[in-house]
Amino acid sequence: MKEKFGWGLIGYGGMGNYHFEKLSKRDDIEIIGEYDINPERNKIAESKGLHAFSSAEELLNDERIDFITIATPNEFHKDYAIRAMQAGKGVISEKPVTMSSEELDEMIKCSERTGRLFTVHQNRRWDPCYLTVKKLYDENKLGRIFRIEHRVHGSRGVPGDWRNRQPGGGMVYDWGVHLLDQMLMLMGEHKIVSVYATLTHITNDEVDDGFTALFKFDNGVEWIIEISTNNFIELPLWYVLGENGSAQIDDWDGNGKICMVTDWENKDAVPVVAGVGLTKTMAPRTDDSIDEYPTEPAKGDWTEYYDNIVDVLQGKATQLITHAQQRRLVKLIETVFKSAELNETIKEVF
Amino acid sequence: MKEKFGWGLIGYGGMGNYHFEKLSKRDDIEIIGEYDINPERNKIAESKGLHAFSSAEELLNDERIDFITIATPNEFHKDYAIRAMQAGKGVISEKPVTMSSEELDEMIKCSERTGRLFTVHQNRRWDPCYLTVKKLYDENKLGRIFRIEHRVHGSRGVPGDWRNRQPGGGMVYDWGVHLLDQMLMLMGEHKIVSVYATLTHITNDEVDDGFTALFKFDNGVEWIIEISTNNFIELPLWYVLGENGSAQIDDWDGNGKICMVTDWENKDAVPVVAGVGLTKTMAPRTDDSIDEYPTEPAKGDWTEYYDNIVDVLQGKATQLITHAQQRRLVKLIETVFKSAELNETIKEVF
Repeated sequence: MKEKFGWGLIGYGGMGNYHFEKLSKRDDIEIIGEYDINPERNKIAESKGLHAFSSAEELLNDERIDFITIATPNEFHKDYAIRAMQAGKGVISEKPVTMSSEELDEMIKCSERTGRLFTVHQNRRWDPCYLTVKKLYDENKLGRIFRIEHRVHGSRGVPGDWRNRQPGGGMVYDWGVHLLDQMLMLMGEHKIVSVYATLTHITNDEVDDGFTALFKFDNGVEWIIEISTNNFIELPLWYVLGENGSAQIDDWDGNGKICMVTDWENKDAVPVVAGVGLTKTMAPRTDDSIDEYPTEPAKGDWTEYYDNIVDVLQGKATQLITHAQQRRLVKLIETVFKSAELNETIKEVF
Repeated sequence: MKEKFGWGLIGYGGMGNYHFEKLSKRDDIEIIGEYDINPERNKIAESKGLHAFSSAEELLNDERIDFITIATPNEFHKDYAIRAMQAGKGVISEKPVTMSSEELDEMIKCSERTGRLFTVHQNRRWDPCYLTVKKLYDENKLGRIFRIEHRVHGSRGVPGDWRNRQPGGGMVYDWGVHLLDQMLMLMGEHKIVSVYATLTHITNDEVDDGFTALFKFDNGVEWIIEISTNNFIELPLWYVLGENGSAQIDDWDGNGKICMVTDWENKDAVPVVAGVGLTKTMAPRTDDSIDEYPTEPAKGDWTEYYDNIVDVLQGKATQLITHAQQRRLVKLIETVFKSAELNETIKEVF
């Protein structure tokens, strides 16, 4: 069994460098080199001791390379992936793996035909905030959870490179893909029964600079997923509602608070003045019927991602991010765009 | 011109008492009496010096009474309103005025035929938080506002009287009616082009115990309106997004904060670690490109409501809450229910 696998990189931008730095620390992976279409990036790679190939072809023909990571702009993932698999290399694509189910099917068929690894880098499955919410859900900590809201709010517009143009730009592809994948993973076997989405175009006409999407699942759970790039005040990152309590996660590390009802029957409600009216329904709870405490942030260890890749290359494991998961995620992204374009609730089950 | 108008009250519950106490302070209104179907309530009225009639008929036949307020459970508004107008009285109905457009049309026709005042008590048009947001919108304080989110979150379930049963119970009727009316008022001449709504049934199967609704207007502005009764952590009451800034209102009085961008071109963004990834897009802004300050809460004077009623009775003014506004609001509520029932985006323009 091979103990060290040769690795190549296509696309040496910010994420390419992220992979390079992480993989440099591993004993079971040998860094062979990278190729970027931009000569300036190749110079920077060389200056960091990362060999720069003179072309993608040269890289793909290097027999030392067992697998590659593709970290180019999104519209180039497919061609590089297929060329690499045909050249006998395993492939990790940056997310989104591609922009259409048809393209993805070509890639998957190529993987099946060549027997090469083909997967995608959904690194945010290891985000501590996500894992913290997943634990709340799996352990039923808030009573039956009926609503999960997940918002990533920024205020800098869409970054000024390929992310702000078609094809492949915009926030659904850039950030939505992570949040949607997390939702699908957390919900496990449950099916989506409807999708309603609306995109924003505040600072960018060509691509979406944010979106809001509401999903219903077959077990009655609703999700709201929202990305924005024009919100100068942020709403909480995660907001989770259960029958007996609520949770709010404020940061990527999973820190936040949980508020549980301790006495449902507590009749402490007295009408309060609210604006120019009175309300008993909306009277805040008093301390004697609720219990508030911090969340227990979960740990996420992203190195599991490449551990799994090595295990797959050694034939010891199956890939964590499967073809079926990739298909479902791409289909979901297509449905978000379709709903927003038609301004309709799409009631497909998947 | 009559200087003092006789007032009667049908339904002496919490809101009935609210009207009674407020009107007791006015010189231009003479309190004649009330009728409640529940003898206990009549006893309480008498103990407060409010004459209790022995029947609605007796009250409606009292010639001293010029106009009445109806503060019964919602399903009784229509019959009392029509009987009162036919008896020559002006009518103020508590909200929601009624539960269907058909019923409302009967009431409006009766008003037109009899020439009697017929309006509804949408008191929350004077809520300071609403007026604060309206001012932000009208004065374009945040740049073009593209999204307004209005949430009233409680955690006590639906109050345990007629509000928790059909017909006429539930949170769309109880609270939604206020928030929807505020939205229509704030948006002025602009039309709704689509509605998507989802109801919750967490603590109550018979009536909605909360809802989320997303509205699009013909000028591109989107609204989210949400009422809940099972949220132990509250999201901000109002959340308003403009092209150049955001606002958050935290209480009914309109207190909150505004955050404006002062330097759009500021390139201070450096990628930050976010979970197991890096992000430049979502890097928080640093202080040198934004300016944060408190809101300027607006004042709301609800006494204008009955000032207007007296002016209308004197023939000096037209009613603030018009038949056309009532029709549009009832139609909007019907559309919210229709969207939720069908789980569809309703694309009607109104």
